[in-house]
Amino acid sequence: MSNQEALTSYIAAFVAELVQAGVTDVVVSPGSRSTPMAMVMAEHPELQVHINVDERSAAFFALGIAKASGKAVGLLCTSGTAAANYYPAVVEAYYSRVPLVILTADRPHELRDVGAPQAIDQIHLYGKHVKWFVEMAIPEKTEEMQSYVRSVCARAAATATLAPAGPVHLNFPFREPLVPNLQQENLFHLEKRGEGYVTIHQGIPTMQRELIEHFGEKLKKYEKGIIVCGSLEEKRFIEAVTRFADQLQFPIIADPLSQLRSGQHDGINIIDTYDTFLRNEDAKKALKPDIIIRFGAMPVSKALTIFLNENKDAEQWVIDSGSGYRDPSLLSTSMIYCSESAFCDDIADYVGKKNSSSFLLKWREINVFTKENLLRIRELPQLSEAKLFHQLSEVLPEGATLFVGNSMPIRDLDSFFHFNKKSIKIMANRGANGIDGTVSTALGASTVLDPLYLVVGDLTFFHDLNGLMAAKLYNLNMKIIVINNNGGGIFSFLPQANHRKNFERLFGTPLDLDFKHVIHMYNGSYELVSDWEHFTSSFLRNMQNNGLSVMEMTTNRDTNLTEHRDLWNFVSREISRFLKGDLL
Amino acid sequence: MSNQEALTSYIAAFVAELVQAGVTDVVVSPGSRSTPMAMVMAEHPELQVHINVDERSAAFFALGIAKASGKAVGLLCTSGTAAANYYPAVVEAYYSRVPLVILTADRPHELRDVGAPQAIDQIHLYGKHVKWFVEMAIPEKTEEMQSYVRSVCARAAATATLAPAGPVHLNFPFREPLVPNLQQENLFHLEKRGEGYVTIHQGIPTMQRELIEHFGEKLKKYEKGIIVCGSLEEKRFIEAVTRFADQLQFPIIADPLSQLRSGQHDGINIIDTYDTFLRNEDAKKALKPDIIIRFGAMPVSKALTIFLNENKDAEQWVIDSGSGYRDPSLLSTSMIYCSESAFCDDIADYVGKKNSSSFLLKWREINVFTKENLLRIRELPQLSEAKLFHQLSEVLPEGATLFVGNSMPIRDLDSFFHFNKKSIKIMANRGANGIDGTVSTALGASTVLDPLYLVVGDLTFFHDLNGLMAAKLYNLNMKIIVINNNGGGIFSFLPQANHRKNFERLFGTPLDLDFKHVIHMYNGSYELVSDWEHFTSSFLRNMQNNGLSVMEMTTNRDTNLTEHRDLWNFVSREISRFLKGDLL
Repeated sequence: MSNQEALTSYIAAFVAELVQAGVTDVVVSPGSRSTPMAMVMAEHPELQVHINVDERSAAFFALGIAKASGKAVGLLCTSGTAAANYYPAVVEAYYSRVPLVILTADRPHELRDVGAPQAIDQIHLYGKHVKWFVEMAIPEKTEEMQSYVRSVCARAAATATLAPAGPVHLNFPFREPLVPNLQQENLFHLEKRGEGYVTIHQGIPTMQRELIEHFGEKLKKYEKGIIVCGSLEEKRFIEAVTRFADQLQFPIIADPLSQLRSGQHDGINIIDTYDTFLRNEDAKKALKPDIIIRFGAMPVSKALTIFLNENKDAEQWVIDSGSGYRDPSLLSTSMIYCSESAFCDDIADYVGKKNSSSFLLKWREINVFTKENLLRIRELPQLSEAKLFHQLSEVLPEGATLFVGNSMPIRDLDSFFHFNKKSIKIMANRGANGIDGTVSTALGASTVLDPLYLVVGDLTFFHDLNGLMAAKLYNLNMKIIVINNNGGGIFSFLPQANHRKNFERLFGTPLDLDFKHVIHMYNGSYELVSDWEHFTSSFLRNMQNNGLSVMEMTTNRDTNLTEHRDLWNFVSREISRFLKGDLL
Repeated sequence: MSNQEALTSYIAAFVAELVQAGVTDVVVSPGSRSTPMAMVMAEHPELQVHINVDERSAAFFALGIAKASGKAVGLLCTSGTAAANYYPAVVEAYYSRVPLVILTADRPHELRDVGAPQAIDQIHLYGKHVKWFVEMAIPEKTEEMQSYVRSVCARAAATATLAPAGPVHLNFPFREPLVPNLQQENLFHLEKRGEGYVTIHQGIPTMQRELIEHFGEKLKKYEKGIIVCGSLEEKRFIEAVTRFADQLQFPIIADPLSQLRSGQHDGINIIDTYDTFLRNEDAKKALKPDIIIRFGAMPVSKALTIFLNENKDAEQWVIDSGSGYRDPSLLSTSMIYCSESAFCDDIADYVGKKNSSSFLLKWREINVFTKENLLRIRELPQLSEAKLFHQLSEVLPEGATLFVGNSMPIRDLDSFFHFNKKSIKIMANRGANGIDGTVSTALGASTVLDPLYLVVGDLTFFHDLNGLMAAKLYNLNMKIIVINNNGGGIFSFLPQANHRKNFERLFGTPLDLDFKHVIHMYNGSYELVSDWEHFTSSFLRNMQNNGLSVMEMTTNRDTNLTEHRDLWNFVSREISRFLKGDLL
C-alpha cells in the first residue's frame, strides 16, 4: 500500500496548497482516472466542490465563478475527450483574462500512444491558450516531491492570477490503484511552511517620472481629448478615471463592460449613447478629437470603432496593465504598459484641474439630446428587443448583476441601457465573443453575485441548454430572459441578408423550439411574456422567488431590424437639426 | 468588386474540387466570418449541406456520417470558440481513424492578436490531433492561386482518407466584404483539369515473400493459436479472416466492433462469450495460447485484456495497416504493418488447411457452454441492462445498425449480444471512449444507415441532448433506448464504490431528469417502458414509425451490479464443473 500512501500524500499536499493559495472553488466532472484528486478535494473542509457532468458546461461554470469573484477557480476532469470539452471555455478565459487552474487526469507514461482506452495526447492540449502548462511528475512520497508538488501548485495559482490573468493547465499522470487513503492522519496538515510553500508577489507597473512628464505635458496642451473605457476589472479604476476625466475635462466613452454606466459616481462626464450619435455625420464632425486615451478591451460599439478609424490622425494612447495589444484598427501611437489607475492618478496630479472645455460640453449636450430622443423607444407598444434594455434599466433592483449574451443583446444593451446609480454590474463573455457557454458562465457567476439576471437570444440559450443542469442540481438563483426571435437575429443586420435564397437556412436558422419543456425538466419556472404589462408584473414577481426562472419574449427578426433602423434614422435626423440650431 | 471576384473564384474552385475529391456531405454551423464558404457550398448541386447550430454536436454529426459512409466529411464554422467546440470530435476522429476535413474561417493577418472581436489563435488549433494543418492563403484571382487552392483541397481530402484515416484542418483567412458573387458564370466549372486537380493514390502494404515465409513457417508449427479481432473497417476483412481462421484452425475472439458477431459467414469459429468465461481461472488455464494474432483496435473486454496480460510468454503479432502501435499492455513480439486482409490471404495460402485442432474445439465448447448458461438472463423478470442486449439480438431487424454508448452499454453488449446472421452493424465511439457526442454521432450515422438504433445510459444521453436538434431539423429516423440508472453506473463496478461517503456526489451523480420533456421539445415520441412485454410491443411499434423515438428503461445501479456479479459467479461455477467433467 505504499503506492496508495504516495498517491495520497502527494495529492493531499497539492490540495492543501491550492487552498492556501486562495482557491476556494473547484468544479469537478465525474470520471475514473481523476478519482484520487476528486476524493481528496471532497474531503477538504474549505473547498467548495461543484459537480458538473458536462465538461463544456463545467468549464464555463468555473469561468463564471472566476469572473465574478476575481479569484482563480480549479477545474478537474478525467482523461480523454472530457478534457477537450474544456477548450471553448479555456479559450474564452485566455482572451478575457480570467484565472483558471485546469487539472486533467491522465494515463501514466507507459499507457500513452499505445491504444489504451481513454488515452489521448494531453501534453499542451490547449496549445497557446493557456499561460502555463506542466506535465506533473508521477506521485512519490519523498520530501523533494512534496516540495515539488506544492511549489508547482503555488506557482499555478499565482500565474493564473497575475496580470494578464488567464488559464493554466496541470496534467496529472495517475497509476492504478486510484483510490487514496482518506484515513491517513492529518491529511491536509502542511508540516513545513504551514502557511503556504511560496507566495508570488507581482509589483504594479507605474510610469517613471520622465514618462509622467512626457504624457502630462502633452495633455496640458490638448483640449479636444476623449477617454474610451472598455471592459476592465480593476478595483480602484472607476474612482481614478472619473477624477482623471474631471481634471482633464475629457468625456468618458463608457462601454457597458467598463462598469462606469452604473454606480455611485456622479456620471456627469459619462457618455453612454455614442453608439447612436456616432452614426450621424454631423455629430462626428463636431466631435472630432485630437487625442484618444483608451483603457480596457475594445468596446462593443461598431459605430465607435468606425469613428476611431476615421480619426486616424488623432494621437491614440492605449493603457494596458496586462501588456497586451488590444488595438484591432492599428491606431495607437503609444502603448503604455502600466496600471490603469496609477496612470490616471499620476497624470491627473501632474496636469491638475483644467478649465471647463467647450469640447466636453458638446459631447455632453449631444449625449443628453440623444438620450432624450432614444426614449421614444418607450412608446413602442409591442415587445421589442431594444426596448427590453430600457425597461431593464428601470426595473432591475439596486446591486443586481446583468449578464448578457453576445450577438444582439450586448449591442442592444450598449444602445439602450443608460447611466444610473443602481450599481448594476454588467457581465458578458467578450474574450472571444462566442455564443457558447453563456448560460453556464452566468450560473457560475450567480454563485457569487446575487441576484443575477441573464438576457440571451434563443440560439445562445439553445447552445448551452445543458448548463441549466447546474441550476437544478444546486438550486441556483438565476433569472433568465430569453429573447426568442427564432434564429440568428444579428445576420439580418449584415450584407448577406440581401441574398434571400439560402439566407434562412444558412444564417436565419430558425429552431422552432418551445423552451417551456426543457425548463420544466430542470425544475425552473417558465413564463411566455405576452406584453409589456405582463413583462413587468412577471419580472417583479420573479424577483421574490428563488431558483431558476425563465421569461421568454417572442420577437420578429425583420421587425427588429426595422425598429432599429427607424429609430436610428429618426434620432440621426433630430441630431442633425439640433446641430444646425433648428431646435434651439 | 475585384475582391469579391477573387473571393468567389477561389472558394468556388475549392468547393468544386472538394466534390471532385469525393466529399458529398458538409456540416455547417452558422456564423459571419464563414459566410462566403457557406454560401458557395449551398449553391453546389452535389453537396449535401447539413446545418447544425451547436458546433460540438456538428462535429460529432460529421464524425457519424464519416464513420458510416467511410468517406471524408467536411465541417465548416466561423472563427473563435466555435472552432474550439469541434475539439472533442476531432480528438475522437483522430484516435478512431475517421476522415474529416475541417474548415475554419479566420480573421485575416492584420486582425490577429490585436484584440479584434471573435479572433483567436487558430493556427494549429487542434494540436497533434489532426493529420495535417494548413494556414490557407488570402484569396486571390490568379492561375497560381487556383492551382494552389485546388491542390490543397485534393491533398486534404486524400490525407484525411489515407490509412490511418483521420481529421485534417484548413484555416481560411477571409477579409470583408464577405459576400461572394453567386451570379458569377459557371461558378463550379473547373476550366483546367476538369476531373480534379490531382488524385492521390496509396498502395496497399503487403508482406514481401520472405516475411510470408517467416510468419507462415512459424504458424505451421503452432497449434495453440488464437486470433483477436477488435474494431476494424476493411471491406474484405471478414471474408479473409474467417478463411484464415478455418485454414489455421484458430478461434476468433470477436469484439463486437469487429463486425464479426453478425453476418452471413458461418460463425463456427467465432468466440463471443470470452468476456464471461475468461473470468474463470480453470477456463483460462485450459485455453492458454502459444501465439496470439491481433487485428484492429484493442477489444473492449477487460477480462480479455487480463487474459492477454497473463499470457505474456505467448508470441503476439499485431497486424495494423494504419501503422499504429495499439498495444497498451506492451505484449506484442511483432508489429506487422500490412493490409489485414492481405496478411490473412497470404498466410492462409502459404500454410494451407491444417488438421482439426483440439485446442480450437476446447475454445468452441467452452464458448457454447457459456452461451447456454448466459441464457439464464432470459429468466430475469425485471427490467435489466444486461438482458436488454440479449433481447435486442432477438428483436432487431435484419440489416439494422446498433450504436451503443460507452461505459456500460458497450460492455453489456460485449457480454450479451451473441453471434447471429442478421448482419447487424455495431457502432460506438471507441477512439477515446468518451461519453460525449454519442447522440450526434449516431444521428450523423443515421443519415447513411437505416434503421439505426442507439442504446445509451442517462449520463451519455444528457451529455449530448443538444444533438437531438438535428433529428428534429431533418426529421431523422433514429430509435433511442435510454437506460436510465440515474447516474454513472460503471462506477459501481470500480474500487471507489467501497467508499460510500462522497460516492454518490462524485461518481454516482444522479441527475433526476425526466427526459420526456426534452424529447417532446424535439418532436420525438417518448415511452417509459414498464416491463419486458411493454418493451417488446413498443419496440415493434416503433419499428414501423419514422422520425425520432425514445424508449426509456429505468434500472437501479446497485441491482445492476448484483445481477452482473450473480450471473458471472453462477456461470463461472458451472464452467468449473464443466471443465472438471462433473457435467458430462
